[in-house]
Amino acid sequence: MSAHSTASTMRAQVAIIGAGPSGLLLGQILHRAGVDNIIIERQSAEHVLGRIRAGVIEQTTADALDAAGVGERMHREGLQHDGFDLSVAGHRHRIDLSTLTGGKHVTVYGQTEITRDLMAARDAAGLSTLYEAQSTAIHDFDGPRPWVSFTRNGVEQRIHCDFIAGCDGYHGVCRASVPPGAIQTFEKVYPFGWLGLLADVPPVSHELIYVRSPRGFALCSMRSPTRSRYYLQCSLGDGSEHWSDEAFWAELRRRLDPETAAHLVTGPSIEKSVAPLRSFVAEPMRFGRLFLAGDAAHIVPPTGAKGLNLAASDVQYLSSALIEHYTERSDAGLDHYSQHALARVWKAERFSWWFTSLMHRFPEGGGFGERMQEAELAYLFDSPAAQRTLAENYVGLPLVTH
Amino acid sequence: MSAHSTASTMRAQVAIIGAGPSGLLLGQILHRAGVDNIIIERQSAEHVLGRIRAGVIEQTTADALDAAGVGERMHREGLQHDGFDLSVAGHRHRIDLSTLTGGKHVTVYGQTEITRDLMAARDAAGLSTLYEAQSTAIHDFDGPRPWVSFTRNGVEQRIHCDFIAGCDGYHGVCRASVPPGAIQTFEKVYPFGWLGLLADVPPVSHELIYVRSPRGFALCSMRSPTRSRYYLQCSLGDGSEHWSDEAFWAELRRRLDPETAAHLVTGPSIEKSVAPLRSFVAEPMRFGRLFLAGDAAHIVPPTGAKGLNLAASDVQYLSSALIEHYTERSDAGLDHYSQHALARVWKAERFSWWFTSLMHRFPEGGGFGERMQEAELAYLFDSPAAQRTLAENYVGLPLVTH
Repeated sequence: MSAHSTASTMRAQVAIIGAGPSGLLLGQILHRAGVDNIIIERQSAEHVLGRIRAGVIEQTTADALDAAGVGERMHREGLQHDGFDLSVAGHRHRIDLSTLTGGKHVTVYGQTEITRDLMAARDAAGLSTLYEAQSTAIHDFDGPRPWVSFTRNGVEQRIHCDFIAGCDGYHGVCRASVPPGAIQTFEKVYPFGWLGLLADVPPVSHELIYVRSPRGFALCSMRSPTRSRYYLQCSLGDGSEHWSDEAFWAELRRRLDPETAAHLVTGPSIEKSVAPLRSFVAEPMRFGRLFLAGDAAHIVPPTGAKGLNLAASDVQYLSSALIEHYTERSDAGLDHYSQHALARVWKAERFSWWFTSLMHRFPEGGGFGERMQEAELAYLFDSPAAQRTLAENYVGLPLVTH
Repeated sequence: MSAHSTASTMRAQVAIIGAGPSGLLLGQILHRAGVDNIIIERQSAEHVLGRIRAGVIEQTTADALDAAGVGERMHREGLQHDGFDLSVAGHRHRIDLSTLTGGKHVTVYGQTEITRDLMAARDAAGLSTLYEAQSTAIHDFDGPRPWVSFTRNGVEQRIHCDFIAGCDGYHGVCRASVPPGAIQTFEKVYPFGWLGLLADVPPVSHELIYVRSPRGFALCSMRSPTRSRYYLQCSLGDGSEHWSDEAFWAELRRRLDPETAAHLVTGPSIEKSVAPLRSFVAEPMRFGRLFLAGDAAHIVPPTGAKGLNLAASDVQYLSSALIEHYTERSDAGLDHYSQHALARVWKAERFSWWFTSLMHRFPEGGGFGERMQEAELAYLFDSPAAQRTLAENYVGLPLVTH
């Protein structure tokens, strides 16, 4: 990058690229520990808040939000879920998370709401998030003095920092800036997508229902007692424009067991979109003074809702390590960040892949694959131990550092 | 089939095709309940005893052998195993079957020995097994009076019976006699085989060791404290003639963790052979008055040693149903045989497929697949619930009739 004499220059201990939940949560935790940080975001705040994502919050993620001082509205408005249902071959089977895990639960609270709470806390603390930063580039992170350049309101700007946190998602600049030889990626693309529909209708059940049907997977979810989120497994070529609301509701009804279908309340969609399903991991998650966190380093298929929770556990490992660096002058946490984060990432990747593989219709799977799904579900419904494995992964595996 | 005036004719309540462990065990249990039966076998008794197969006996199989009055030598000479090891990434991890399942265990006792015990019991009871029966064919099993034809010592013979039990294995005549439209088959062929070596050397460990290594799967097993059975994952094109004993031992040592490798005692092989790995199920298992049992209806890959145990549970369901028919005049057991047997078969197929998939090197699996194996093993070693699912499948799921 050529230096430019008119560039305005800032300084922060940590430059955070990306103002999604990972970047905002990291900024908030660091700030509360006295580590100063600046967040740079390519989009506007409104655009960031327009992203609609699932929100099934693990206890560890809720703890992180509490630790960041932003858990208050989540506790007030979030829905505590002590279980969920699997609808298979026309019958619903409840997975009692609470009983199976010794009292743990999950909280249903939209990712958009978490982002909003984090933005509000950041504003209240007077911390700056530089939205609509263009042409962001990261520099010299393999040495002791990394820096970030970008253009904002037509002005070239720079941040000199000790560390760069890459919280800029799958398509972001941070992972892309790593020399190809220094990074290894693992990927699986699934041969289907999810068509999601959001509507202001009461949910068909007060808990989530994961549906395996001969016509494909479906998920009955919600944002609140009056706002429902439903998903249908769809073809990769499908676009939401091919689906009228009526066609969506009719197809959903066909995939549900009869009793659930009879209780389905339909209404006009607020939003409708198709998302592909992908498993992706980049290794390592640290490159000198650049640390990747969240979607920048890994993607899970949405079955089981691990994406946001993995981002939060990355942030917990990374914030602890950075705080340890500044307060205890120890780099042990930084040196182990990649290893610790990836150990949890891979387990959640495995769970998401397994749960996806169990519940979807695979066009290429053939008879044997379908029978394996059916046998696994039959075993699951019979075996408390198998239910416990599902439940303990669903509520979130512990954060360990060994 | 044309009738032939010189044919000698016999009569039995049940004609059993095949004198492997399924057929012999069925014959023995039926005889003890007063149901007369004749066994027809294509091979000689010596040939049947020459088949070398694994022998990890579930408790339910041991119970069936006891019920048939042939468990005495198994209890005396068989080895009770309360656990086994997984060797992964250079370390051994014990799966404590007994603790994980509330006191259950398995018994290591060769299939050949079980066959020998069943033959001896049948001889002692004065029951006939017609060995070296040629051109066996089964007839009219869709009606009330099925019969079996075959040629023995140059003489055409017939058995008229109430029921035919197809215990004649994967390549047998019974499943092949079912009209193609009446049967559905499911199959998965794995892209590797197992090269087995039998030697009169003490086993490297007193329990089995299942090995996942970058060079492929291996298994350290035994028949007795002085006779070992080892296996190596090999290419499908490999023949045992390509492997000298020295090459086998050297490759096994490379796949073991260093400490185990250091304790390996080698010696000349008694037997060496390559077996393919296959998952196969035929549905249903009943066609009128023909009932399939064991390998005639299903094949599992050998990982987890479910083949003989599934044959034994089929025989338990089938013998109960036949005895119920003759003693209680109820056909409920016969009518549900296929459903009950297949429910257990599919769960064992799933376990065998899962355990095989977890521990082998898949040439086409790629990086993501390998990481899924590693993540699942890491999770397994951390999670008592996951270990319990492995253990409860390994010792054998309960026989249920619902």
